Amino acid sequence: MSIRVAILGATGYTAVELVKLLLRHPEVTITALTSRQEGNAPIASVHPSLVGRIQANLENLSAAEVAARAECVFSCLPHCASAEVIPELLKAGCRVVDFSADYRLASAQVYEDWYGHRHPDPDRLGKVPYGLPELFREAIPSADLVANPGCYPTSAILPLAPLLKEGLIAREDIIVDSKSGVSGAGRTPKLTTHFPECNESLSAYNIGRHRHTPEIEQILSTVAGAEVQIVFTPHLVPMDRGILTTTYSHPTRQVTEDEVLDCLRSFYDDEPFVRVVDHLPATKDTSGTNFCHITARIVRDRIITVSCLDNLIKGASGAAVQNFNLMYGFPETTALL
Amino acid sequence: MSIRVAILGATGYTAVELVKLLLRHPEVTITALTSRQEGNAPIASVHPSLVGRIQANLENLSAAEVAARAECVFSCLPHCASAEVIPELLKAGCRVVDFSADYRLASAQVYEDWYGHRHPDPDRLGKVPYGLPELFREAIPSADLVANPGCYPTSAILPLAPLLKEGLIAREDIIVDSKSGVSGAGRTPKLTTHFPECNESLSAYNIGRHRHTPEIEQILSTVAGAEVQIVFTPHLVPMDRGILTTTYSHPTRQVTEDEVLDCLRSFYDDEPFVRVVDHLPATKDTSGTNFCHITARIVRDRIITVSCLDNLIKGASGAAVQNFNLMYGFPETTALL
Amino acid sequence: MSIRVAILGATGYTAVELVKLLLRHPEVTITALTSRQEGNAPIASVHPSLVGRIQANLENLSAAEVAARAECVFSCLPHCASAEVIPELLKAGCRVVDFSADYRLASAQVYEDWYGHRHPDPDRLGKVPYGLPELFREAIPSADLVANPGCYPTSAILPLAPLLKEGLIAREDIIVDSKSGVSGAGRTPKLTTHFPECNESLSAYNIGRHRHTPEIEQILSTVAGAEVQIVFTPHLVPMDRGILTTTYSHPTRQVTEDEVLDCLRSFYDDEPFVRVVDHLPATKDTSGTNFCHITARIVRDRIITVSCLDNLIKGASGAAVQNFNLMYGFPETTALL
Amino acid sequence: MSIRVAILGATGYTAVELVKLLLRHPEVTITALTSRQEGNAPIASVHPSLVGRIQANLENLSAAEVAARAECVFSCLPHCASAEVIPELLKAGCRVVDFSADYRLASAQVYEDWYGHRHPDPDRLGKVPYGLPELFREAIPSADLVANPGCYPTSAILPLAPLLKEGLIAREDIIVDSKSGVSGAGRTPKLTTHFPECNESLSAYNIGRHRHTPEIEQILSTVAGAEVQIVFTPHLVPMDRGILTTTYSHPTRQVTEDEVLDCLRSFYDDEPFVRVVDHLPATKDTSGTNFCHITARIVRDRIITVSCLDNLIKGASGAAVQNFNLMYGFPETTALL
Repeated sequence: MSIRVAILGATGYTAVELVKLLLRHPEVTITALTSRQEGNAPIASVHPSLVGRIQANLENLSAAEVAARAECVFSCLPHCASAEVIPELLKAGCRVVDFSADYRLASAQVYEDWYGHRHPDPDRLGKVPYGLPELFREAIPSADLVANPGCYPTSAILPLAPLLKEGLIAREDIIVDSKSGVSGAGRTPKLTTHFPECNESLSAYNIGRHRHTPEIEQILSTVAGAEVQIVFTPHLVPMDRGILTTTYSHPTRQVTEDEVLDCLRSFYDDEPFVRVVDHLPATKDTSGTNFCHITARIVRDRIITVSCLDNLIKGASGAAVQNFNLMYGFPETTALL
Repeated sequence: MSIRVAILGATGYTAVELVKLLLRHPEVTITALTSRQEGNAPIASVHPSLVGRIQANLENLSAAEVAARAECVFSCLPHCASAEVIPELLKAGCRVVDFSADYRLASAQVYEDWYGHRHPDPDRLGKVPYGLPELFREAIPSADLVANPGCYPTSAILPLAPLLKEGLIAREDIIVDSKSGVSGAGRTPKLTTHFPECNESLSAYNIGRHRHTPEIEQILSTVAGAEVQIVFTPHLVPMDRGILTTTYSHPTRQVTEDEVLDCLRSFYDDEPFVRVVDHLPATKDTSGTNFCHITARIVRDRIITVSCLDNLIKGASGAAVQNFNLMYGFPETTALL
Repeated sequence: MSIRVAILGATGYTAVELVKLLLRHPEVTITALTSRQEGNAPIASVHPSLVGRIQANLENLSAAEVAARAECVFSCLPHCASAEVIPELLKAGCRVVDFSADYRLASAQVYEDWYGHRHPDPDRLGKVPYGLPELFREAIPSADLVANPGCYPTSAILPLAPLLKEGLIAREDIIVDSKSGVSGAGRTPKLTTHFPECNESLSAYNIGRHRHTPEIEQILSTVAGAEVQIVFTPHLVPMDRGILTTTYSHPTRQVTEDEVLDCLRSFYDDEPFVRVVDHLPATKDTSGTNFCHITARIVRDRIITVSCLDNLIKGASGAAVQNFNLMYGFPETTALL
Repeated sequence: MSIRVAILGATGYTAVELVKLLLRHPEVTITALTSRQEGNAPIASVHPSLVGRIQANLENLSAAEVAARAECVFSCLPHCASAEVIPELLKAGCRVVDFSADYRLASAQVYEDWYGHRHPDPDRLGKVPYGLPELFREAIPSADLVANPGCYPTSAILPLAPLLKEGLIAREDIIVDSKSGVSGAGRTPKLTTHFPECNESLSAYNIGRHRHTPEIEQILSTVAGAEVQIVFTPHLVPMDRGILTTTYSHPTRQVTEDEVLDCLRSFYDDEPFVRVVDHLPATKDTSGTNFCHITARIVRDRIITVSCLDNLIKGASGAAVQNFNLMYGFPETTALL
């Protein structure tokens, strides 16, 4: 039984990673790759790394045309554009994994505040599972629509969620200092991602204003059962891939480093893709994989966590395939090891 | 009037930067370059970037031989080795700028705790000016020995000192999250700095255990007039040069971003090498220069500062030349613009 | 039917890539990973990218112990060390894929001239198939020992072999200008591969003296049926992976670019891992894959080819798995797509 | 006596390097920085590396306005645009150093063939000195207009010119295989120079079609006194700066490596910025400097030269200052050491 899948917005970096993962999936046939800009070009002409691996062309297809070809749709469209087409796909019977932020936030007002657009499909908000299987696995198999998490949120939520759930850390004054490779900025050339500008350089950006802030806070609040507040500072690192997130939080009681590590370990013991390690992990350890490595330290009564993952895989396309596997009853690790 | 200068330990990265800066100094003649390992090789054979720019050979010289040739000595020796030779140089009438950590800390016990060695010259501790002219300029001109600051400390102290001095931020629970290029790890090949290991990767290291921690705390405590405590987390970034430090501190009262920026600006208004900027600076903006760029933000009642500098220049050799200029009465910016 | 395989010298970069590929192979069980230096450490402690993916320890095993555990042995030992152990493994009934140069050259004298060691097993030379399936596929299935090609040779031989075989280019005065990422230099830290030395820099090395020269010439001579001479110039590029080789040769008669491309295309038409493309390929197009991309141009009556591949995959571990698949009758692309 | 200078097109990478060099020049005052696009912004807002170093604004000035403010004009305008404004500047009495290709070629027809535009000022072609002081120093002091060389041409001409002049190498079948950092592609964001595209990748481009081809051939032909033909292959390297050029040529008679090196050495013996070295140089050795390092090897009766320089300094702005110094009678190395 092979599932026919479509990928919307197939020219970006997450889409090409998704294609590569799906080509390894024994139960998937890619039946449509859409693009509004690239005419009818072979996808391998846009992404030469696909030469000889997939013959398909990019096509400018309507939602109806997509639905006629695919049971499952991965939407790699930008926010807003995604929520404009997804209702039609769902109506036509497709199941959808959405890479955009459109269905991650529960509140249309918060969405509008941070994304600057009125939400095109507000009634669905709050009813769509957040596709982080490590926290919300039960909700995914039966869902017709899954909101695939953001890359920064996954790197911040995975280390903090167990500590908040166990009440080990305070819900206020959590600092999330994240460092990301440049592919996270997308494939559209800009001055800030022009090689001679960002190579051999490190900078912070969007301090206090990054759109992943409310997403992280919402999910952590859900986990903690009460409002969680973070200070989120993303940095741009001269490397292709990888996110490393360093968090600083206050313990609610006297704890040892071992207790913190044990809390993380017992939470993720059965998880196939989260590894709690003793050493300080490097992004390269997880590069090209669907793994997230996490560790913790205590310094001057502050709990510090360090986590890392590949922003395009565990932070995007790998997580999407993980969700797809859950939605269709395949072993969760299929195509991901 | 040309000052005859010697450089001890002339094979490292800070030494080669120092040579390049001093070659531009109109009042300096380099008369000795020492190395215990490199025999009698031309320095340009060890550092091909000096080919055709300086003819001098590396030599394995005693302190007495150095003192016979030079009025001023820059010691780029490792910690401990530096304090073993400096007393003899001072006795012989040399003035010294020490790049090592040996004379930065005021307490021999703290030194031993963090560096794992008994201090070779404990009586001088606490009497040597810390060579950060922006804070201790008055003490430098008359000094025979100046302790050149560490690279991370300069990047952390410059943004925090004015805020602590003005009482704008609390002295506890200050987080210093620093990111450094690989040249900061020195010129000795190690697995962690082997290109295929650290390229395309980011990692944290020595969390809570980095030796610059007590140095930052001591200087900030001096400035604040009371004990300051920090959590210091250094990260290794795949680039040659540059440090970016993000700090998080609690305001002591309700303040605006403008007040914080004004506090920084009025403090550094007359400084030739510190620039308080409105935008978020990138390490590349200061690469190859003696400048430090600083800005500040307020997010959720946390004051965030972002500062950057070139670890080999403002974080080492440029600062040393700045100190040298002050010691010998040259304009402070000589050879540094 | 699962093949029990061992990897000798399992701490290097080619070995870790091989482990990752073999973990995806449905018919392989890794039963031994040897190292003389790393004691009894889990391989995942040496290569954190394997955390949670393989539980095996490194072990210091004798040839007999290896043979007792494995049917097939991949030797990632250095040259000379490899040929010292392989005869014993073969005698014990193992089949072997050798990553070293030990069995690539047909002449013990040429080996000694270029590698500076007397060959430990000279009688086998000239009888071991060169494991480049695109040229010598028939010899591999029945072989007990296969000499896995060097990374530079694969990148140079694949574009030149068809042109020599068809007599389109002259056998003399062929220039092979290659550019390689740093992982090709291995995992042992050296000054030349220390990040601050080789990052942001490009250099040529071993001009006219690189050990891959006689290997390229021998294989091309075999293909051409007469002696081929090359000038080989390798360069070190600041990137982890990838080789791009630019060759310059003289056409033997008036030809067009289309004829040259057609010659390449018809030669590689049925090959799963060689793609002849019209555009100028980039190493990134083949990074992380077992593909080699090739194109050709004619400028001022010179035929220029440009080829690229991932030095650790098609240039080493991927080719080894390709050979393994041929030796054991698995589809050649198993674990490689 | 301070020369008032203007820089046209001051937003690009060569212009910002030029500003930094000129700020070190004791006899220069920058009086105008033009840009058609950046309105009236401070140049330091466009190039944050100039913060606190220069107060000037970018301005959209006419040629007459520029001429009213400056004696000497550096034109960093694109080709064609440069030759449209330079005649007016010259008429108004300015002396000009032109960074564009507009006055490098002697033939308007060759210009049109390679640049695709009719030359705006054809009558001056062939009368403007080519600003490579190592070859044409005598023509520069009296010139009102100097054509600053291209970066690739400088890297190719410097090693080949002495060999051609001495008749040591044949004038045909010279291969120039060049590798350049990304800043050579300019400051305008494009997909090919988008960090995630060109980082960790190497590619050849414009094989046989690069516009520096006729420039190299023309200058080498002038030096040789007869037509020289080259095959030129540029490559894009993932680094900010630096060009390394490997050339392959045929000796005209039996020569030794020492003879070739001696030929280069005696040619450049008195040159302040060309260093003939025994070792194989790396681009990093010349990074940030106005030096060019050259060496040579002989392999299989082929003469190979390897040369490197900083494309923005010796390949552009440093050479321009060198020309400026010659034009105004300053020591040639002023502001360049």
